[in-house]
Amino acid sequence: MLKKLGLVYVLLIGLFLIYVLNYKLQPGPADPWETAGLRGNIEDKYVMVTFQIGIDYWKSVLKGFEDAAEELNVSVEYHGSTQHNATEQMTVLEQTIAKKPAGIAISAVNSKLLTETINKAVESGIPVVVFDSGAPDSKAYSFLGTDNYNAGIEAARKMAELTGGKGEVAIITTPDQHNHQERTEGFSDTIRSEFPEMKLVSVKDGHGDLVASRQAAEQLLSQYPGLKGIFATESNGGIGVAEAVQAHQGDDSTLKIISFDTDKGTLDLVKEGRIAATMAQGTWNMGYWSLTELFHLHRDLQEDADAYKGSKPLPVPDKVDTGIDVVTRANVDNYYAK
Amino acid sequence: MLKKLGLVYVLLIGLFLIYVLNYKLQPGPADPWETAGLRGNIEDKYVMVTFQIGIDYWKSVLKGFEDAAEELNVSVEYHGSTQHNATEQMTVLEQTIAKKPAGIAISAVNSKLLTETINKAVESGIPVVVFDSGAPDSKAYSFLGTDNYNAGIEAARKMAELTGGKGEVAIITTPDQHNHQERTEGFSDTIRSEFPEMKLVSVKDGHGDLVASRQAAEQLLSQYPGLKGIFATESNGGIGVAEAVQAHQGDDSTLKIISFDTDKGTLDLVKEGRIAATMAQGTWNMGYWSLTELFHLHRDLQEDADAYKGSKPLPVPDKVDTGIDVVTRANVDNYYAK
Repeated sequence: MLKKLGLVYVLLIGLFLIYVLNYKLQPGPADPWETAGLRGNIEDKYVMVTFQIGIDYWKSVLKGFEDAAEELNVSVEYHGSTQHNATEQMTVLEQTIAKKPAGIAISAVNSKLLTETINKAVESGIPVVVFDSGAPDSKAYSFLGTDNYNAGIEAARKMAELTGGKGEVAIITTPDQHNHQERTEGFSDTIRSEFPEMKLVSVKDGHGDLVASRQAAEQLLSQYPGLKGIFATESNGGIGVAEAVQAHQGDDSTLKIISFDTDKGTLDLVKEGRIAATMAQGTWNMGYWSLTELFHLHRDLQEDADAYKGSKPLPVPDKVDTGIDVVTRANVDNYYAK
Repeated sequence: MLKKLGLVYVLLIGLFLIYVLNYKLQPGPADPWETAGLRGNIEDKYVMVTFQIGIDYWKSVLKGFEDAAEELNVSVEYHGSTQHNATEQMTVLEQTIAKKPAGIAISAVNSKLLTETINKAVESGIPVVVFDSGAPDSKAYSFLGTDNYNAGIEAARKMAELTGGKGEVAIITTPDQHNHQERTEGFSDTIRSEFPEMKLVSVKDGHGDLVASRQAAEQLLSQYPGLKGIFATESNGGIGVAEAVQAHQGDDSTLKIISFDTDKGTLDLVKEGRIAATMAQGTWNMGYWSLTELFHLHRDLQEDADAYKGSKPLPVPDKVDTGIDVVTRANVDNYYAK
């Protein structure tokens, strides 16, 4: 009798456990509209390729790339050339292609020299997007980066706001680089067309170098003692200009410096008030949306490897302007690398 | 003895069932990198707002909006003014705001008149992006649309390819609309700068109307009997031009027509060879990426309603160029609405 009871208990407990576990297996209310969401395969590897791989600038791009990968449940790798060297970057890209990744996002150290290798990747069926530094004649599916002409416009408008829209201003730039030419043109076109009481008196070459930019700024300060502002189109230059102004005019200087990018050195000077504003590029956006686009391209190409050979509409934008923010003392804390 | 054995069997079977069910409960290999993917709440409603709500042009935008919503497990609604009327669209937008949706994507019938209502939505915490027809002075977080100047460039290059890069060409456009001005400028700048043996002889107003455009084309054909090509910057005009050329020159005409957009009438004429090419806008991309951006903005604003008030970097691009495709007889079948 006792044994019979024991058997019944065991059966009942067993059935109860089966019932509970089966209940837990139900994925919630059965709704025909419910979908699983966007989710990739953790085995799929997406690669980000840059040059001068160690510099701070790429950190936030990589953070965006990783953030998107984590959300979409895919994997990432980061490679690049150590130097500002096209041959070295081509080798890195060749090695990346050989591993047949799910997608490649590359910032091209040289728009012309990298085009052939980028095309090789696309032709072998690997989705490629280019970010930050473009390769407009390549077969890459999309470009994501700063509209540098627009960044120049924004810098000019900020300069007018800081100087009351009056007086002489100058630019220190790197005239042999296309993106710096665009920043310079956006700035000078806007001063000319929107601010008749302002005058751009000089555009000097700072060679992308702190010392050369400081020297250029010193010349400007001697030549134009009433100068109201200097726009430095890259961050080494901005720091050099700040040093020159500090040395020549001290803490009481009212000359307004606008710089570019958000490395720690520049942000610290913004915080101290020695650089009035710096133009922050949408670096996190470059990484985040590069990965997102590659994810979609990879999915389409897996379903149909020839998807885009018959000139079907592409499922990703042609060009993404990742935006520009004006960083001042008021919001500088939001721009330090996390 | 038998009963004891029975008890043992039941125990073993019970344990085995528990083991099997528990195994099924595991969501795959336990990997700390596994995430659930990008997935929203089906209760979240995203609204697309247009004008002239019934026209074909929006169908593919809505398809992209719906495709993204299905993938992300959120809901959509589609509203708009029936006419090309700013007051009517403002009313629709006001009604939409009152329902507090998770996000709004709007194509602004009038960039100035809609700005205030768009700002009202943003200020009340609803993410807004603008697509196709912009509102550049509004507080909307992003713009997604065609780079019309670039579309003009592409049209000019296609025209040069079709005509062997020689001879007289003309434009029929709608000169009082900004996007059509940009298409016209991109086309004429490119003919001037890249094709010295081509000449743009006339730019006529087709009023966005089939009959007016046909009449304008008839005048062109009389005035310039050697005309090699006509670029119509909108689709009614393209059909009007095709009718004029058919009437004046018949099936043997070698004059090349390039039109704009991909309504069925235009695509049929491309298929028949009477329109040589038409410029397809990235309408699906406008819808798909509008919803995707709104999804991200909504998520951020839910976590922190003041996320962007301290000028944090935005997690979406400033501007998205949704691209332009050249559609010819070779790929026309890929562009009919599905």
